[in-house]
Amino acid sequence: MDAILASSFDDAASMVQQIGETVGVVAFAASGALIAVRRNLDIVGIVFLAVMTALGGGVIRDLLIGRTPPVAFTDFTFLVAAALTGLVIFFWHPPAALQRWPLEVTDAVGLGLFVVTGTAVGYQWGVAPPAAALLGLITGVGGGVIRDLLSGRIPAVLRTDEPLYAIPAFAGAVVTTTVMHFDWYRPWIGLSCAALITVVRLAAVKYSWHGPRPHYVGR
Amino acid sequence: MDAILASSFDDAASMVQQIGETVGVVAFAASGALIAVRRNLDIVGIVFLAVMTALGGGVIRDLLIGRTPPVAFTDFTFLVAAALTGLVIFFWHPPAALQRWPLEVTDAVGLGLFVVTGTAVGYQWGVAPPAAALLGLITGVGGGVIRDLLSGRIPAVLRTDEPLYAIPAFAGAVVTTTVMHFDWYRPWIGLSCAALITVVRLAAVKYSWHGPRPHYVGR
Amino acid sequence: MDAILASSFDDAASMVQQIGETVGVVAFAASGALIAVRRNLDIVGIVFLAVMTALGGGVIRDLLIGRTPPVAFTDFTFLVAAALTGLVIFFWHPPAALQRWPLEVTDAVGLGLFVVTGTAVGYQWGVAPPAAALLGLITGVGGGVIRDLLSGRIPAVLRTDEPLYAIPAFAGAVVTTTVMHFDWYRPWIGLSCAALITVVRLAAVKYSWHGPRPHYVGR
Repeated sequence: MDAILASSFDDAASMVQQIGETVGVVAFAASGALIAVRRNLDIVGIVFLAVMTALGGGVIRDLLIGRTPPVAFTDFTFLVAAALTGLVIFFWHPPAALQRWPLEVTDAVGLGLFVVTGTAVGYQWGVAPPAAALLGLITGVGGGVIRDLLSGRIPAVLRTDEPLYAIPAFAGAVVTTTVMHFDWYRPWIGLSCAALITVVRLAAVKYSWHGPRPHYVGR
Repeated sequence: MDAILASSFDDAASMVQQIGETVGVVAFAASGALIAVRRNLDIVGIVFLAVMTALGGGVIRDLLIGRTPPVAFTDFTFLVAAALTGLVIFFWHPPAALQRWPLEVTDAVGLGLFVVTGTAVGYQWGVAPPAAALLGLITGVGGGVIRDLLSGRIPAVLRTDEPLYAIPAFAGAVVTTTVMHFDWYRPWIGLSCAALITVVRLAAVKYSWHGPRPHYVGR
Repeated sequence: MDAILASSFDDAASMVQQIGETVGVVAFAASGALIAVRRNLDIVGIVFLAVMTALGGGVIRDLLIGRTPPVAFTDFTFLVAAALTGLVIFFWHPPAALQRWPLEVTDAVGLGLFVVTGTAVGYQWGVAPPAAALLGLITGVGGGVIRDLLSGRIPAVLRTDEPLYAIPAFAGAVVTTTVMHFDWYRPWIGLSCAALITVVRLAAVKYSWHGPRPHYVGR
């Protein structure tokens, strides 16, 4: 009886996890495709950048925990979702004047969902809690870093003009891993955590919150 | 009797596979070394870029399927072939006026062979056919992406002025994996597939075939 | 009796290995953090670049030999040491006029220690001696390549104006693996090897030793 409850609860949790990852994939794929459109790439470049942005973080995470082949090569939902998103953006994309916010929003939504789902995957795989938080951060940030490297930009997390990005992500990963460690994790808690990361990141963009700079002596 | 035939057939197939991979390694090593010469790098940079270009795609493929250490670290034929190719190009390289076509041809030959051998390796490792095609694409494109990232260029697959590259590669990977799935794979079919990828890619360069661009609203 | 001696000797060897790796981590973290300060990155960028530079080479090595999760995700000494180094450099860093040499020295010290410890890890993991030397080279060079890629520079090993870098590293890796192969390896030999790599690299910087360039016909 308990086992059945636990199992159906686990099913619900894993369904939420799956949905969260898929929405994150679509959001990151859209962010990669929008950058590709802005750079006037052709259809191949758009789909390629969409897929690399959407799947890159999870593939790095899976390589690090030794889950090979990575889930992106066994469950094709993610690959198809990312490629379709790239195609949709190819045919329809917001006019240029609107492109900054769509990009920021899709990126922030993907970041929040990937940090939480990446942390959960790491934790369930059995790594220590700090490593799970780190894996969540890498899952969230990895896709964007690959996207920026491939399109010849310095990664957002290292740009001097970029508002807070890694700090909300890492804070969210620490909260998620703590919650899991004390066995309080519920799907809605994970989603709240993801939403909080997204909101804090977008607030940082809106209100130009930056991390402290070093006092640079030379110049 | 059947087993002996099958085994000697397998030996022939695996010899063709080995030869194909080695020729692909030499071709990609030459393409990396030629770019390094054009950039006026020293001997270390030339050999380094030759080796990374030649072995990068296969190493990524092996990491993704969990074959560690990657074959480049256990069968030194590939490493030695790549390094020797770099040294040969260091001492002898075509005059500058001729360098565009040698580069395009070596890169296209490497692409064709690596896509087919990469797909075959993935399929034989037991991944699903679509994943095998994807691994073939990654094996073929990976070395060039690493070469371009390391030498500070945007990867060919993402350059707006670059003729079709990933489309013939992916089409060839899909054909290879389909042929293997229906158990029709023979060494000469694999080689034809590789040749076709090479020819289509070179025709794309010659006749400037490009993928469709999005209708970009802003400007 | 012999076993006890061997074991306490192994303990000493592994302690030296651990200390060597930690000092290498601090040195590379400092080099990443100094570049980040020079680029006026904020505190997150500084710690991020410090950690990636310090742990990147070892993580790549561990992925290549299939040791997952990589040691950086199981033994947090390295992560904490790298992050703390980044924080220290954030609050205190040498004035700009002095920044070239601190950067060269920290990088060279990290290079020497990582090449030797990386080779030793590869050898003890059971790969063939040439592969162990290659893993040592990758461990030593990897972190710096990641640092340079992330901060938008062409990796040192490929810059035309850069004095000898990979040659002393590879020579040191070959010596280390040879010494291990003949069972002559002692902690002080490893440390001497690391010191030699560091000294040769710094001498190359000081006296502008460059590798030979190809005779480039075009221009």
